[in-house]
Amino acid sequence: MSFLSSSSAPFPRKRFVYVKPIQTGFPDDSDSRFVYRKFSEFFTYKPLPFSVFVSNSVLKASSPAANAVLRNGMAGGSLRTEAFGAEVVEKGGNIGGGIENVHWYEERKMRGSESNETELFPPSQIVCKTMYAWKEAVSPHLAAEREEAMVGDSEVLHMLKRCLGNGLIGASCNTEELEVMCVIETAGGVASPGPSGSLQCDLYRPFRLPAILVGDGRLGGISGTISAYESLKLRGYDVAAVIFEDHGLVNEVPLLSYFRNRVPVFVLPSIPTDMSDDLMSWFDKSQMIFTSLKEIMLSDFRKRMQRLHDMPKKACDIIWWPFTQHKLVPEEKVTVIDSRCGENFAVNKSCNWISQQFDACASWWTQGPDANLQAEISVQEFVLCINAHGYISFLLTLGGFGIALDSMTLGNDIYFIIRFSGDITKGWASRVYFSDNGSTAVEIALKMAFRKFLSDNKVLLDLVNADVNGRSMDLKVLALRGSYHGDTLGAMEAQAPSPYTGFLQQPWYRGRGHFLDPPTVSMSDDIWEVALPQKMQSGKSGLECLLIQGAGGMQMIDPLYQRILVRECKYRKIPVIFDEVFTGFWRLGREIFMQSAAEMLYCQPDIACFAKLMTGGIIPLAVTLASDAVFEAFTGDSKLKALLHGHSYSAHAMGCAAAVKSVKWFKDSNTNMNLISETRLLQELWDAALVSQISLLPAVHRVVALGTLCAIELLAEGSNAGYASMYASSLLKNLLEDGIYMRPLGNVIYMMCGPCTSPDICRSLLEKVYDRIQEFGLQKDESAVFAA
Amino acid sequence: MSFLSSSSAPFPRKRFVYVKPIQTGFPDDSDSRFVYRKFSEFFTYKPLPFSVFVSNSVLKASSPAANAVLRNGMAGGSLRTEAFGAEVVEKGGNIGGGIENVHWYEERKMRGSESNETELFPPSQIVCKTMYAWKEAVSPHLAAEREEAMVGDSEVLHMLKRCLGNGLIGASCNTEELEVMCVIETAGGVASPGPSGSLQCDLYRPFRLPAILVGDGRLGGISGTISAYESLKLRGYDVAAVIFEDHGLVNEVPLLSYFRNRVPVFVLPSIPTDMSDDLMSWFDKSQMIFTSLKEIMLSDFRKRMQRLHDMPKKACDIIWWPFTQHKLVPEEKVTVIDSRCGENFAVNKSCNWISQQFDACASWWTQGPDANLQAEISVQEFVLCINAHGYISFLLTLGGFGIALDSMTLGNDIYFIIRFSGDITKGWASRVYFSDNGSTAVEIALKMAFRKFLSDNKVLLDLVNADVNGRSMDLKVLALRGSYHGDTLGAMEAQAPSPYTGFLQQPWYRGRGHFLDPPTVSMSDDIWEVALPQKMQSGKSGLECLLIQGAGGMQMIDPLYQRILVRECKYRKIPVIFDEVFTGFWRLGREIFMQSAAEMLYCQPDIACFAKLMTGGIIPLAVTLASDAVFEAFTGDSKLKALLHGHSYSAHAMGCAAAVKSVKWFKDSNTNMNLISETRLLQELWDAALVSQISLLPAVHRVVALGTLCAIELLAEGSNAGYASMYASSLLKNLLEDGIYMRPLGNVIYMMCGPCTSPDICRSLLEKVYDRIQEFGLQKDESAVFAA
Repeated sequence: MSFLSSSSAPFPRKRFVYVKPIQTGFPDDSDSRFVYRKFSEFFTYKPLPFSVFVSNSVLKASSPAANAVLRNGMAGGSLRTEAFGAEVVEKGGNIGGGIENVHWYEERKMRGSESNETELFPPSQIVCKTMYAWKEAVSPHLAAEREEAMVGDSEVLHMLKRCLGNGLIGASCNTEELEVMCVIETAGGVASPGPSGSLQCDLYRPFRLPAILVGDGRLGGISGTISAYESLKLRGYDVAAVIFEDHGLVNEVPLLSYFRNRVPVFVLPSIPTDMSDDLMSWFDKSQMIFTSLKEIMLSDFRKRMQRLHDMPKKACDIIWWPFTQHKLVPEEKVTVIDSRCGENFAVNKSCNWISQQFDACASWWTQGPDANLQAEISVQEFVLCINAHGYISFLLTLGGFGIALDSMTLGNDIYFIIRFSGDITKGWASRVYFSDNGSTAVEIALKMAFRKFLSDNKVLLDLVNADVNGRSMDLKVLALRGSYHGDTLGAMEAQAPSPYTGFLQQPWYRGRGHFLDPPTVSMSDDIWEVALPQKMQSGKSGLECLLIQGAGGMQMIDPLYQRILVRECKYRKIPVIFDEVFTGFWRLGREIFMQSAAEMLYCQPDIACFAKLMTGGIIPLAVTLASDAVFEAFTGDSKLKALLHGHSYSAHAMGCAAAVKSVKWFKDSNTNMNLISETRLLQELWDAALVSQISLLPAVHRVVALGTLCAIELLAEGSNAGYASMYASSLLKNLLEDGIYMRPLGNVIYMMCGPCTSPDICRSLLEKVYDRIQEFGLQKDESAVFAA
Repeated sequence: MSFLSSSSAPFPRKRFVYVKPIQTGFPDDSDSRFVYRKFSEFFTYKPLPFSVFVSNSVLKASSPAANAVLRNGMAGGSLRTEAFGAEVVEKGGNIGGGIENVHWYEERKMRGSESNETELFPPSQIVCKTMYAWKEAVSPHLAAEREEAMVGDSEVLHMLKRCLGNGLIGASCNTEELEVMCVIETAGGVASPGPSGSLQCDLYRPFRLPAILVGDGRLGGISGTISAYESLKLRGYDVAAVIFEDHGLVNEVPLLSYFRNRVPVFVLPSIPTDMSDDLMSWFDKSQMIFTSLKEIMLSDFRKRMQRLHDMPKKACDIIWWPFTQHKLVPEEKVTVIDSRCGENFAVNKSCNWISQQFDACASWWTQGPDANLQAEISVQEFVLCINAHGYISFLLTLGGFGIALDSMTLGNDIYFIIRFSGDITKGWASRVYFSDNGSTAVEIALKMAFRKFLSDNKVLLDLVNADVNGRSMDLKVLALRGSYHGDTLGAMEAQAPSPYTGFLQQPWYRGRGHFLDPPTVSMSDDIWEVALPQKMQSGKSGLECLLIQGAGGMQMIDPLYQRILVRECKYRKIPVIFDEVFTGFWRLGREIFMQSAAEMLYCQPDIACFAKLMTGGIIPLAVTLASDAVFEAFTGDSKLKALLHGHSYSAHAMGCAAAVKSVKWFKDSNTNMNLISETRLLQELWDAALVSQISLLPAVHRVVALGTLCAIELLAEGSNAGYASMYASSLLKNLLEDGIYMRPLGNVIYMMCGPCTSPDICRSLLEKVYDRIQEFGLQKDESAVFAA
């Protein structure tokens, strides 16, 4: 179903177009005729104030169906010898494939209760059309075969497009004269075959019209309705509403429960067994429901069009496109893509009309699948993400300038991410740059920081410009020792030397930073302690330093230290990057950066990286958020000043869809029971008393329980300590038998749960861990005694 | 439905367990009783050679249903006052929530045609069970509510697990004594609510038992059957077969067309209207179908178990796990994960029993979603990939050694990729290393190449070992100028200096290579030409050089040059990397590396990178393939010798699923019409005559049409030439009006299509491009004249 034009005039002339593309059982059964007649009857029963011109036509039919009309006729109406409308080009007779032109046409003028003979304007219209009809009352593919009257998919689509287009004639884009509404009624279930055998949900997919799903109120109807909905969503349809007839089985209860937060559900009164009043009282009773349905359809349509319309501006405001000099990209150059179907984009053109464009530069970079493979992968896994959840994709056209502009896709709901960061950063971030994983997000963050630093220190920038090689200057990062930011070379360079950065692993690594030893915090024997590094000294933080902070293994860094560090960097105009790849999204509890104490930092970064949990464990995606000042350091007249970094799948649709859903889910106290709704903080997942008890166990050195993480360092000496130790292996083997899979970091064991994990599960994990560590300690004691 | 144990003994004793977890309309309707009775009747009608002990029991029911049995009884059978079997713990009366223990039990012994009184072994068994029954014949959630007899989901699962477990008693894992088959029949449609209101497809999901979908042969049944199947696949079920009753509508034709290559479809004969023989002749007629169905179920089950069983060895043979010293990983340490459900893994334990483990180290790294969010994202987008397509995931447990072992997931069907590379590389690659995009794949390839080089040049390795810093040695790559391998620092270092690598873009870039100017090939005025670089000289290729080859923009590099270069490198023990990120998977035609002429290279790389097209445009995923010799350079006794590079989503399930489907689709001449089946080469997509004509146009300088790519360089001079030129913009604007979206590289325009794009579409693109370039040339001429 589709609304192709709507008007805001106070008394607009209306046109309602009803199209039945495929009709079997014809002429005994004709839905377009039913609509034509019922409207006439209902109008007589309850006239509208204005006059309405009602018509019904049948364009093409199989020979048996056409003959049935020729021989027996239908009550009223007439066969016209001339073609009518623009749909029928070929005149008369068999037009190939066993399909004939029918030219059936009937019309009535219904006079409005408040109209008079001298109406100035033409009346409103109800235009009913059957495109193709077959005689036998079976599935269209079977009727087509048995009556030897085949129609190809492209013919159906072509004809349907013309019917819709003709429906719009007289309704210009900006006119307020005519309000047009088009409804297409398909035949049978959503996955019923069309005449060629293609499933109708696939056949009509190129239009991607919003759907009203007619559900089933009978026994078994719940399952059928839900599955039909899922078939539509799989193929990327927007379902505007579900409606079904009441059969006294309160099917709406489970359906409402399933469709809650998805789609509105409407229940029509039971169709009376006594049909003596031709359903007039039933229509009366149902009218409010139909009115609501119409309102929802119109409002959905307007929202969709508004979204497509607003998208270029929003994109230009928020997105940081790769390889793009934003100063050279006006809004008009942003192409909004509604969806992908086969090798085409569906793009939004003027007059709210979606049209197809062949993507000859593989902007869906790797392009590979034809429409059939998409029906295999995409239809089931892909289109869903692009379209189904209100997803709209972007593509930026940069006419004729510069190298390979990567196409970018972005879900409009990405504003959740922005909003998220807004929540926690009080608005510092204004731009989002997409990549594929934490390591690439950090590489991008470093490039941003370098530029920001140069831009803030004009003297240096001038030096760079003077020295074309620029190799005389050695920019370094200021980072915490023991931190980790990823395994690509740039991210490695920002880490302190370790066996993982050695020549054997990456001969190009040099370690381009000053690395600080921070104080750490943990609980030991039920007491929180700050451990100071041996030499508590700040690194040499000169002009050439940038800062990266990040989680250092399972160490919890002293928040006060971090706060002072950030403040000092800000003072010295050193850009601050928060690497939140691991820590982001409640990993360390609450709704904040870094750790549970970090709210006390009262500081904001210039750049921050997020990944991992952002897509809920489903799919790789990373973002680098940046402040406006960072973004501005890249604007200029030349494309070469833009940030030239991109990956093929940057901001790929599935990742964006997963991110939007995950973050929304984590943030909503209706879905995440661990959120305390007033404060929006994550409740404590690890029982404090149990954590204390574990910290008191003789075998335990220290415990850090924070957010979704609980790390326990076992007391160990000599070769039992450190990352290379196998000390904890027997303990973990026992825990595996308890059904807990854990991974050791030498003599440190840790458990992670999700932001939605129930505290009951965490408690049960802690209890098992407590028991096993106690047992482990006793065994170690025994073996010690035995050894002595 | 599930098979929990099977035997290969010649005459095994059999046990068939039929469980009906949820029964409404009881006792008038009882499916377990129906099975019990029909089997008895059929046995009487056609006895089996061996004796069978048949029983039927009803465990629990709502009060109205229990009372109906108490008051009216059921013919035969008896109420037992004692509990029987292990399922009923609580004895008698109301056991809470309005559910009562029923203790209904009936049994019969059917004597086999060839058995005698003194049988040595206990007879075979048919065990029928109804777990929960309600009286009213409505949806279970409604019956539960109306009869005030609620059962929670966990109770149902718990009871079902016990029923299945009891069914297995006496059938040990390796025994050949007893062959057990269990079938569970759900109530209503796949998405019908269970007693709690949860949809049954969600309720039973933790078991992930293989399903037989009972389809619908009536009018409308095609759509219902397909949608129900999609609901199951969405949730990650394996559907073993679809079966439905014939209603004379040949629903099997469209169903077979849809299910082709997916699931076998069986059609049962129509159930006779004359039921006087109690369906005996119908069962007779259907027996062969049921036998086939059973065979398919058994064979699927065995294949699934075999796959789970073989997985550890296959994984150890083929996968290159990140952060893993393979020498320290025996097969026994590989955990095979069948699926994920909520925060648990389902792992395959002994006796073919799948059990759940809490993933306390977030091995699905980012873990976030609870079961409900999975039902929102995963269920629809994620579980499908993990399980549905035969996907099995791996997890490697490395007990207690070394730092953070990343969990790895891998689809077993990844062997398609291996097989693919086998096809094209004649077996050079033996290992696959996963990452997220081309840039990270190249970083990994570089690390591999460095190590291989050091390992092949022991003198250098000793030098490195002597100098712990190792910074004295400067390893460089040998690469082609103009090539591009990605935007992370390591990949950038392997590219020649350009504006994109300047200090302003990445101050850390140094350009660590010798960069060669290769000769290129293109068509000009209908003649293929080789263009030699100004200084045709080979770079200084000393010991410190590694080689990277790759596509240089839209330049086609002379294959002879490449072949000689590779041969020289091989001779000097310089590892060769093929960067196939862009070129792989038919991008440049045929089934080969590099380009259409590359088969003539007769050479193989040591390492190759693939990404982009591998996942069919859906999702980021990259692989770095390596030869065994490269892999061996990383084995040793220390974890520190392993390749320590990883990303959280390495080998993520959705990416693997998409890759398997895409590559399979491209490779199969049934799905990719462009493949010439005998040769497995891709047919020419760009019409040669049209390409020639374009090359003859005065406005055209050169054309390269190859595989899925057609690049056209417009004749341009001065500022009109080069990447920064806007020369082509008016041309592209006109082509956009023709519905072709293209992207310029200065005065070069190019079109890409997919490996499955129809040559007709390509021809139509070429025709439009020809017309528009001709028009463009005339306009340029005119403006030139006008200017003159």
